[in-house]
Amino acid sequence: MDNKNTNDKTACFIIIGNEILSGRTQDTNLAYLGKWLAEQGINCTHTRIIPDIQQTIIDTLLEVKDRFSYIFTSGGLGPTHDDITAESIALALERELLVNREALQMLYDYYGQDNVTDVRKKMARIPQGAGLIANPVSGAAGFFIENIFVLAGVPKIQRAMLDSIGHLLVGGDPIETKIIKVRTLESKIAEFLTKLQSDFPDITIGSYPVSIEEDYPLRIVFRGTESDKINKASEYLIQECHRNNIAFMV
Amino acid sequence: MDNKNTNDKTACFIIIGNEILSGRTQDTNLAYLGKWLAEQGINCTHTRIIPDIQQTIIDTLLEVKDRFSYIFTSGGLGPTHDDITAESIALALERELLVNREALQMLYDYYGQDNVTDVRKKMARIPQGAGLIANPVSGAAGFFIENIFVLAGVPKIQRAMLDSIGHLLVGGDPIETKIIKVRTLESKIAEFLTKLQSDFPDITIGSYPVSIEEDYPLRIVFRGTESDKINKASEYLIQECHRNNIAFMV
Repeated sequence: MDNKNTNDKTACFIIIGNEILSGRTQDTNLAYLGKWLAEQGINCTHTRIIPDIQQTIIDTLLEVKDRFSYIFTSGGLGPTHDDITAESIALALERELLVNREALQMLYDYYGQDNVTDVRKKMARIPQGAGLIANPVSGAAGFFIENIFVLAGVPKIQRAMLDSIGHLLVGGDPIETKIIKVRTLESKIAEFLTKLQSDFPDITIGSYPVSIEEDYPLRIVFRGTESDKINKASEYLIQECHRNNIAFMV
Repeated sequence: MDNKNTNDKTACFIIIGNEILSGRTQDTNLAYLGKWLAEQGINCTHTRIIPDIQQTIIDTLLEVKDRFSYIFTSGGLGPTHDDITAESIALALERELLVNREALQMLYDYYGQDNVTDVRKKMARIPQGAGLIANPVSGAAGFFIENIFVLAGVPKIQRAMLDSIGHLLVGGDPIETKIIKVRTLESKIAEFLTKLQSDFPDITIGSYPVSIEEDYPLRIVFRGTESDKINKASEYLIQECHRNNIAFMV
């Protein structure tokens, strides 16, 4: 199956953090970012979750950078020894990592000038040429450079940072989603869906079983940039449900 | 920073599913698998989340296969047009995709022989040479081939499948985790942690701020295969907290 979405703006999300891979922390940033990007007309088509290892961050960044319209990273912006994102990005892009005056001012404003110790100053080190992303929650700035947006990992801070970068992104047509819940099993409707998908090659039709104990154990998801086609395809599904006495909910 | 864990058994998790990338479905499988693998003495060091596109699945598999001890995949085992995992893996490994007699029997047992339509038979197509992983929840088998374990995406089914494959994995020493919650800010303790990490190169020490409103807004995580070193390093942290009147909770 090829990707049916005609939207050509893509994003790759790189989550940096041992705590996500070990299962100790449940990631919730991807689900938020995926939806937020769709609103901007950008398709999140790839995500990687990698450990706090400098060489791995550098290799990953260089590998994906030119394959997606935008790269977003999450995590590793704090003051401790395992916060190595800014440094790794500077190395990957062969830029100097310098104390950024504006980022330092943000730390002064947040902590008070006397409280910005050398350790805290580490959070103002930004690759040369980057623009800053304000952090209204805890003072340490994110940044953007080339097509890479570098965000804090703490969900509340990440969401606040997204609020301030929307205008920097060039999206395609917004991606719409329509979901129909169906009271049947996948195998009862698979043939029909295969035909429907081939009749509507410009949208993506997904079939997702949820728990069999639920009232509507199957969800059919229509996704794409052309709402007339989404509406038409979902109308055909509804007709098919009527024909076979299958309960559904839009 | 290099990876301090001396455990040499690694895993890469490949989550296949547009619904995770779009943010429509919140993944919970990685957090479970990461913990489960640690119990088997295997370090989950990489995760990729990719769309339901055949070529992407094939490319991803070939790219990671030889770089990790084990590969786990999640999703795409159902009967609909967007369930293309078995087919993609067969193509990647250049194996035939055949109706597996044992997998077919599992479908017969679950649905009853008369109810196994051609569409449902699709779920018994398994790459040649693979071993089966029983699915006690819904009848469609997972499988393993070379170092790849192919699991259902529905969390309940995936967990049940993991229960039956533990004996097939060769793990290193179990990976232990110790967490100390601390009532301070990262920047107050960063220097001490940098020194502690360099004194204990065989374990990984992570620093994770949680919400500032919490009673203990920082978590220090010690992780590794040598419990004496984990205990010693965490004891030093506790002494440091005592010295600076920082509240903590083990």
